[in-house]
Parts: sequence; C-alpha cells; structure tokens
Amino acid sequence: MNYEMPDINLKALFLGDKGENADLFKELLIKMVDEHVGWRQNYQPQDLPVITPQDKSSQSFEETADHVRSVMDLLSSKLRTNSLPWHSAGRFWGHMNSETLMPAIIGYTAAMLWNGNNVAYESSPATSQMEEEVGHEFAALMSYKKGESWGHICADGSIANLEGLWYARNMKSLPLAVKEVAPQLVENKSDWELLNMTTEEILDIMGKIPDKIDDIKAHSARSGHHLLELGKWLIPQTKHYSWLKSADIIGIGLDSVEAIDVDHNYRMDIGKLEEKIRELVANKIPILGVVGVIGTTEEGQVDRIHKIVELREKLAKEGIYFYIHIDAAYGGYARSIFLDENNEFIDYEKIDEVYEKYNIFNEKNEWLTEDIYNSFKAMKDAETITIDPHKMGYIPYSAGGIVVKDIRMRDVISYFATYVFEKGADIPALLGAYMLEGSKAGATAASVWTAHKVLPLNVTGYGKLLGASIEGAYRFYHFLQDKKFKVGDKTINVYPLTKPDFNMVDYVFNEEGNTDLAKMNKLNHDFYGEASYVKGNIYHNEFITSHTDFAIPDYGNSPLPYVKSIGFSEEEWEKERKVTILRACALSPYAHDKEVFDEFASKIENAIQEKLENIYNVEHESDNETSH
Amino acid sequence: MNYEMPDINLKALFLGDKGENADLFKELLIKMVDEHVGWRQNYQPQDLPVITPQDKSSQSFEETADHVRSVMDLLSSKLRTNSLPWHSAGRFWGHMNSETLMPAIIGYTAAMLWNGNNVAYESSPATSQMEEEVGHEFAALMSYKKGESWGHICADGSIANLEGLWYARNMKSLPLAVKEVAPQLVENKSDWELLNMTTEEILDIMGKIPDKIDDIKAHSARSGHHLLELGKWLIPQTKHYSWLKSADIIGIGLDSVEAIDVDHNYRMDIGKLEEKIRELVANKIPILGVVGVIGTTEEGQVDRIHKIVELREKLAKEGIYFYIHIDAAYGGYARSIFLDENNEFIDYEKIDEVYEKYNIFNEKNEWLTEDIYNSFKAMKDAETITIDPHKMGYIPYSAGGIVVKDIRMRDVISYFATYVFEKGADIPALLGAYMLEGSKAGATAASVWTAHKVLPLNVTGYGKLLGASIEGAYRFYHFLQDKKFKVGDKTINVYPLTKPDFNMVDYVFNEEGNTDLAKMNKLNHDFYGEASYVKGNIYHNEFITSHTDFAIPDYGNSPLPYVKSIGFSEEEWEKERKVTILRACALSPYAHDKEVFDEFASKIENAIQEKLENIYNVEHESDNETSH
Repeated sequence: MNYEMPDINLKALFLGDKGENADLFKELLIKMVDEHVGWRQNYQPQDLPVITPQDKSSQSFEETADHVRSVMDLLSSKLRTNSLPWHSAGRFWGHMNSETLMPAIIGYTAAMLWNGNNVAYESSPATSQMEEEVGHEFAALMSYKKGESWGHICADGSIANLEGLWYARNMKSLPLAVKEVAPQLVENKSDWELLNMTTEEILDIMGKIPDKIDDIKAHSARSGHHLLELGKWLIPQTKHYSWLKSADIIGIGLDSVEAIDVDHNYRMDIGKLEEKIRELVANKIPILGVVGVIGTTEEGQVDRIHKIVELREKLAKEGIYFYIHIDAAYGGYARSIFLDENNEFIDYEKIDEVYEKYNIFNEKNEWLTEDIYNSFKAMKDAETITIDPHKMGYIPYSAGGIVVKDIRMRDVISYFATYVFEKGADIPALLGAYMLEGSKAGATAASVWTAHKVLPLNVTGYGKLLGASIEGAYRFYHFLQDKKFKVGDKTINVYPLTKPDFNMVDYVFNEEGNTDLAKMNKLNHDFYGEASYVKGNIYHNEFITSHTDFAIPDYGNSPLPYVKSIGFSEEEWEKERKVTILRACALSPYAHDKEVFDEFASKIENAIQEKLENIYNVEHESDNETSH
Repeated sequence: MNYEMPDINLKALFLGDKGENADLFKELLIKMVDEHVGWRQNYQPQDLPVITPQDKSSQSFEETADHVRSVMDLLSSKLRTNSLPWHSAGRFWGHMNSETLMPAIIGYTAAMLWNGNNVAYESSPATSQMEEEVGHEFAALMSYKKGESWGHICADGSIANLEGLWYARNMKSLPLAVKEVAPQLVENKSDWELLNMTTEEILDIMGKIPDKIDDIKAHSARSGHHLLELGKWLIPQTKHYSWLKSADIIGIGLDSVEAIDVDHNYRMDIGKLEEKIRELVANKIPILGVVGVIGTTEEGQVDRIHKIVELREKLAKEGIYFYIHIDAAYGGYARSIFLDENNEFIDYEKIDEVYEKYNIFNEKNEWLTEDIYNSFKAMKDAETITIDPHKMGYIPYSAGGIVVKDIRMRDVISYFATYVFEKGADIPALLGAYMLEGSKAGATAASVWTAHKVLPLNVTGYGKLLGASIEGAYRFYHFLQDKKFKVGDKTINVYPLTKPDFNMVDYVFNEEGNTDLAKMNKLNHDFYGEASYVKGNIYHNEFITSHTDFAIPDYGNSPLPYVKSIGFSEEEWEKERKVTILRACALSPYAHDKEVFDEFASKIENAIQEKLENIYNVEHESDNETSH
C-alpha cells in the first residue's frame, strides 16, 4: 500500500441495510467487469470477435437472449419471495448470517470471470497466490510461526474439521508404521509409548528418514490398518452432529468418539476431561485427540483452551499425549481483536489502551474476561484449527479454512499426480494433493484475500468489525435482561441464557409463575414459529430469530441450573428432558451503535409484543401501553 | 415458461471471446443488483437507512471507500497479470476450462447477495428449493426413476466420489449390522451371502424394520467396525489420485483398492475386471464396488459401463454382487445428448434424425459409436454417479454433484441435529445431515438452477452445447492428424493418441526418424513449457496447451501400441517407462463452427511452428514457408 491504512469506517464496507451504498457497489462491480472485458479484448487483438453484429441481430440470438432475460426474472422473483432479510440492521436476530463485506462480494464476482481452479497452480496462478497469502494470514492470526506453518481455504467448517481429524488419525498412526518399516528408530518404545509420542517427536523422526517416508505412509492409517488402535477422539458434550459424521467418514467410527460433559456455561468441563482421560489411560486406551471449540454453534461459548493445553502439559509428564484440534469455525476471526497492528498478541494489561486507540468498542469493554483472553491466546498451541471466513469473516458462502501449526504435517496426508505437479515451486503445484477436496473456486480465495486486504486480521481491521459484533450482542443481551411483556392478564418474562462469551445471545420467554416446563417449551417453539419462515411471508416479519433444543442426550444436566433459575423444579426437568431455546447470532455491523440499536429496540419490542399476543390470542393493544 | 423454448443460439449465452456480449452481461447484472437493492429498501420501509448522507460525506467513510477502491485496483491487476486466457475461441487447447455460462455467473452473483446457506432449509428457502430441483434434474438426466431417486450439489468431484464411496462402504456393511441387531432377518445367510446382497435387497430389509434402523446404523461401518471385511474397491488403472485419497479418508485404506488394467484405448479392460473379481472371489474376498469412469481425466475416454453392468448381472447368478459408482464428474452432462425433448433416452436408430432436428452437430456425427451410446445408456443402473456442473456444465467453480439411484439410501448415511431439523418437510430440513459437507453456498444452487433453466438437460439445451464441444474437439483432432512442421532441416510430425470418446484430444510431437523415446518426451515437455504459464507472460502466448505423463506405474503397458505406432521399440518403452503427452480439453463453445475453427487453425499452426523453432533454436521463417 502506498497510502496509510485509514481508520476503518465499517459503514463503507457493506451494501447497507437499505442498499445505501448501491452506488459504490455498482461503481466497483462494473469497473471490475469492464477491466475483465478489456483483458479479453486485448488478448491477441488481431483476432476478430467471433460473435458478430450480424449474429447479435439474428432472430435466434434475440430469442435466446430474451429466454435468458425471462429466466433471470424467474430467478429474481424466487430469490425475493423466499429469502431471509438478515441484511436488516436491527430486526434479524437469528441464524449465523448477515450482510457480507461488499469488497468480498465484488472480489468473488470479479475472480469468477477468470474462473481459476485452485486445485493446481498452473490453472490458477493469480488466485493460487492469493490462497497462499491467505494461508499465511491465517497462520499469523493464530500466532503460528512464520514459515513453519500453513493454512488453506476449504469448502466449509465440516470439511475443515474432517481434515483436522484426518491429520490427527494419520499422525497418530505413524509411529506404528515406523515400527513396521524402520523399527530401529523406535526400538526402545512400547506400543503405548508409540501411541503417546508428541506431534513434534513424530515429525522429527520422519525428517530423519526422507527416503522411507512413502513406505511409512503406506503403512500408516491410510492403509486401512491401525484405525481401531488409535484410541478415543474427545469432543464436547454439546457435540455438533458434524463431529459424528466426521468420525463415521474417517473410519475411526462413532464408537471411537467420547463426549466430555460441558459445564453450566456450556464450556467443556476440564475436570471431567481429565477424569475421562485418566479412566481411558487406566484401561490402556490412548487418546487420539481432543477438540476444543471457540464459539459453540448453539451458544457461542468459548472453551478454555489454555486449560486443555495445561492439562496436556501436565499429562505429558506421565507419558500421555493427545493431539489438539480447535473448531474455531465460528469464533476464529475474533482472535484479530487480540493482535496489535504488528500482529503481536496484546498484553492483557495493555488491552484496554489498545482498544481505546482503535475504537474497538464504542462504549466500555464489558465482554472480555481473563479466561476468554487466555483461551484465545492458547490457540497457538493446537496442531490444527478450523476457521470459517463465511462466518465471522463476513465472506459469502462457502468459504471455510484450516490452519496447520507445523507445515511438515502436510506431507503426512499428501498425494501426487504427475499431470499437475511441477517441481521447484514454493506454492504446492498441486494443492489438491495436500487437502481433502479437489477442484475449488479461485474466486473464493480472491474473495477472502480481498477482504483481508481491506481489513487486516488485527485491531486495525477485523478486530474492529468483530468488536462491533460483540458490542451489538451485548446490547441485545441487555435489552432482553429483565424485560417483561404484558399480554392480556399475563406477564411474560425474558431470561437470557448466559453472559455471552462471544456474540451469540440465547434466551427464553416464560409466563410469570409458570412451573410447567413443557408449557414454556411450547411457548418458545410457538414464538419461533411467529418469528421465522414457518409462518410464511417472512419478508413482512418485523422480528426474526432462530431456535434450538437443549436435550439430555446431548447436554446432560448442564442446562439444569438455568432451568431452575427460571423457576422449574429438578423433577420438571427430568420429566421434560429438554428446554427449547431462542437463539440470536448478533452479526449486524450496525447494531453496536447506541442510536441505531435504540431505534430498533423499541420496534422489535413492539414486534415481540405482537407475536406474543398472536400466540395468546390476545387482541393487539396500542403501542404506548406496551410495558418497557 | 409462458413462451416456447427457442432454438438456442449458443453465442447469446457467453460473455464472448472479445467480450462481445458485455452489454447484455451488464444489463442483467445491474438488473439483479437493483432488484436486490429494491428488496432491501422495501423490507420494513418505515426503517430509515442506517448509513446517512452525513456518514457518507465523512472523512473516514471517504478514506475507507478509497481504501476499498485501491484494493480493487490491486485485485484487478493481479487477476489480469496472472490468469489464463481460456476464454479464447481458438487459442486455448489445454486445461478443463473455458468460458462459463453468462446466466450462471449472473445467477451466482445475484444469489450471493442473498447469501443463503443450503445446509438448512430454514436459512435458505429459495436456494434450497433450487437445489432440490437440480437434484431431480440430475436424476432425470441419469434416467433414474422419478420420485425414487435423489441428488444434490457438492463442493467438487472429489467430494462427490468420496460420498459415493461412503455410501458404498456403509451399504455393504449393513447386512453385517443386521445380523448383529436383528439376526432373524438374515438367519439363513452366510457371511459371504451377507456381503453379496444386492443394494435393493438390503434396502428392502431396512424398510421392514423402521424402528431398528438407528440401531442397525450404529452397528454398520459408521461404528468404525467391519471396514476390513468389506472387500476390495476396484478402480481403473489410470487411477486418479483422488480415488486413493478417498480410500485413505474413508478408512477402508489404500490396501483395499485394486486397480484394473485399462486397454489400449484407456478404458477399463472388462476381461481383466472379470478375471480380478474371480480371483478375489476364489480367495473369499468380497467386492465392495467397481468404479466406472465417463470421461477420464487425462484422456476423456468412456468406460464401457454396459459391460460392467452385464458382468454384474452374470455374476449375480453365482451369488456375487458389487456396488457400481460412476465417476462422470467430467462426462456426466454429455448424457443430455441422448435425451429427447421429453427426457427419454433416444433409440439408437433414431438418434441421427433427432440430432438433425436439433442441430446437435453442424456437420456429420462422426463421434458416436454404439459402444459409447450403450455406455451412457447403462449409467441408469449404477447406484451413485458423480457429475460436476463446473466441468461440462459450464458453471463457474466450484460446483460438483452426486446422484443417487435409490432415495432410500439417503437414510444410510444421515444424521440429525435438532437446531435445524423441522419435521414434515418434503425437502430435507437439514441437508447437512444427508451429505458429506455442512454449510454450502445457496449461490451455487442458484447458478446451476439458472443454467438448467436456460439449457434443459436434453437435446434442446445442454445437448447442443455438448455437441458443439465434441465437434470442436474433432476439428482439433483432424487438424492434428498427419500434420507436419518443417523446423530447420527437421520434420516434426504430430500423433493424436486415440479417436476421442468425448471432447479431449491427446497428442505428441516427434521428430521424423527419431527412435529415442526420452528425446521425444523432452520435446513434448519443452513444448508444454513454450505453450503454458511456465515461460511467463501467458497473456502474450498465442497457443496454450497442457500436458501429462503416462508412466508404467499408473498405466502398465497400455500406451505401448501407441508408442510403437510412432516408431519406438518395446525396449525403448521399457527403458524410458513413460511417455509425455500433450492434452487439449476442447471446451470452446465457438470452435465447432468451421469458419471460426479454420480462422484459428492457421494462427495456431503458425504459433506451434514458432514454438518448435524456439525449442530447436531455429530462426523464424516467414509464414508462407510453413508446411501445411
């Protein structure tokens, strides 16, 4: 850049709640299209156009063009009829969706015109270079060592998590393969010791025998053997179905998955984790790995990663080792709030000072606790991390990503095919041989690259956007706290689930005095019906939210204190066995602004009032009678 | 449609070699953006814009907007500097890339503005419906029974193939699981019989015990057990590395993969397939499945699917059964050349008549043989088929797809998660529970849906485009046949590899009289260097191609007859062990036109001449001395 990075104004980065920036959007879109067309025109300008004016005047051309126009009308109608208005600055408090970054949309469209396929460098030099840069940026975001780490874009978080598990599975099996191929290198080790070698030790051994690597890989889990010897894959109890699917696909199977209880704040219970590990170890069952989550899908909570890392360090002294994969699909970009303008992790003591300098929060920083700080800090110690640009990167779907701490691990899963492999390149000539997928859009890389250029992954860029999102979530959280609605002769109270670790706010409505949990669940399920596509005509809906169930098979008794705090007995909980929760991902890039939020607060309060009245079949009262 | 489907003019469907349709492209692009902006404006019009005129006049807004403009300049420069000119009507004869359909690009961009996530219906009603429609269209393309089959979009062909293998693995293991959970249902069957049950038999049994399905699934391969009992996965010898990767990931392992020799036309040798199956069966090793390929990655060849199906029928009488998965990632869309306007598979006797009616070929149909016809026809008997819209669907990357013959198979891999699952919907409420990936772009579905609306998957639509591509390939094939170049005192001959089964043309250059295979390989490798990004400044390159190696570890001796036909001895082949091939995917939607092709033919002939002279360090002769 030959200009100073400006103090970012988020309002210049989005199309706008009411399309306010349509002029800028179209200016840039058309510029990129025109520059692409110019490039086509000037490739071998001696070639005349193959589509002539006469072609364009022909009847079949005009009929075909009109056919295309009609299909576009149909497409536009369908999109406008059945899409969700998540673009709203303050009425959409539901799914993990919102406006995406204007530069990312335009970057995607522009690169799509060139249609590179990042599976191989030779078919996409421009966008492959961009993906390589994005990988380095991801690594810097995680404070992984420059030059020794790696990352790439993938289809989505499920695929990234699956790739992480693939890495873990193959890594864990390598010592067993070494024992078969080059036993002298591990001759003093028992099988138990082989299955508890650290990732670094394993990679160091591999580095010593480059000529045997292919043979060792052929004896690793990729052969189809050893899969059931690798031990257990430990995931949080609030297990996302994608983890079960991953264990199924990767062949270790669901029987190798163990869920670790979450605590009452929906974070992995580290005490229970240690207990489970010790129990397994006592039965001579190794630990394949542990998954920590930064931003749980249903609650937005942040696992105490530093505690997992500390536990690993403690157990290492007893000869126990496990791989750590972090599912930061949702929360990964939030690490940018902790990096200063040089991408250094900010000292805890200095953080408020930095936040003030960069206007990370409009008002006070009430979000950050030392535990959240330490959780994000410790991410650097995990082997692999999933991060989804299409979530908190504000990039359009679909763009996932994975970051790998030690680049040497890349060779553990790699394949080669001659037709796309050129030797001597820094960038993998055939990226498809180093990842789970094959062909992939260069446009995705361009989109993410463009967004990262506009918003660096630290407090000067994304930190500001993530701060806005968290502050918006806290506004919504405070809006809900102690809120009461009078509906006919009933009073409906609102109960937020937890103080958010991130930018998700879960909550329930309950009738004052109601002690019947099934009745409360029905109320919240009905409310979701009123505040979602279920009722139809979502375009006219004035307040939109999403919902989920916390049920005993997935959550155990972790919701019990919350359920009790609302006024239900333990017997009620044991009878109903679930609580239906309303769930708001607070992604709006505008709602952190007090004025904007307050403007919408009174509107959504009225909308909620009306929905509750619909549910209770109460005639709508005039707005000024609504309780505040 | 309230208008008659026009006789499609392909020239109205692409941006154009020289951007000739830039006006139409921008008209439609801006229309879709404007209609999106209008939708934003009119969602709750009582809400005032949150981005005010004052915001837009502020210094930070202007600085941020200028920052975005600068990043766009950088992006445009990088794309223009390092991209491939595959848009050329007649100079790019290399990778599997070309112009993509204008309506698909615009459809993608339009839907990206709404940013649906097709993982769940409730977060993307419009584009989820489109994906459902596309699935039905894929099924109809394969002549799968309406209402009994299913398909969906996925990230790419590797993922689709992996999903196919996942289906095969879990299906094959179900009888073993039934034996554990409900032994009475299979009590007369030996383990061998259980592992040779047909897909239909297995699904019929599952249908009888709906209340036991979850338990049976829990005992299937998804548990992590039975993986090594399922037998061998048979793939063609020209094995794409993605198949090895798939076997690795899915846990059956590389040791469960067997390669079946290809014949001298690079198609699976069905005699060898039967031999291998009988050899395995004699050793009591079951056959997990067989992969047939419609359009091999390196040669574009078409496996004789009907022979694989016939073999399965024959072996069924001996109690042997195997799953068939077809990798039609490349060639799948070509089945549209065989479907009439009612999507009925055309009788072989009537096909030329239909082609004439719909102008599938400008000139004669010299491509189609009865074997190719029967290969495509028999696809309907395979359990699963991979088809990539981003290949011959002329859709931008990345868009893959998978089609499933029997919709009941869907439940064999499915998962559920409460937060996105609504009961009673026709369309999976949570598509992510029925496929390998999770979050995915609704825009991809919109892009494919739009293309299919413009070009139906039969002779009235895609058939015409695919026909053009094949005819273009044949023009290039004939252009190369018997071509000679005089370079100094040497004569360089051209040798096409085979009569193409589809639209790929492989070829080599050789010096007249040269009997040194290493020397020929070097010539072709050097030629690739001259005709690719390797030399730099690809934008000024007047002829572009790609290359590959056919080496003994992957191809055995199948290239030997070709190598001998050029003039090399068997000893040469055994010494060099590989032949370097130049490879042209003929995807241009314009080059089928004789006038267009002839115009470019003389230009690329000169360009080839010049490249050969560079390689031989011969001074460039004037054009009219070039041999023809």
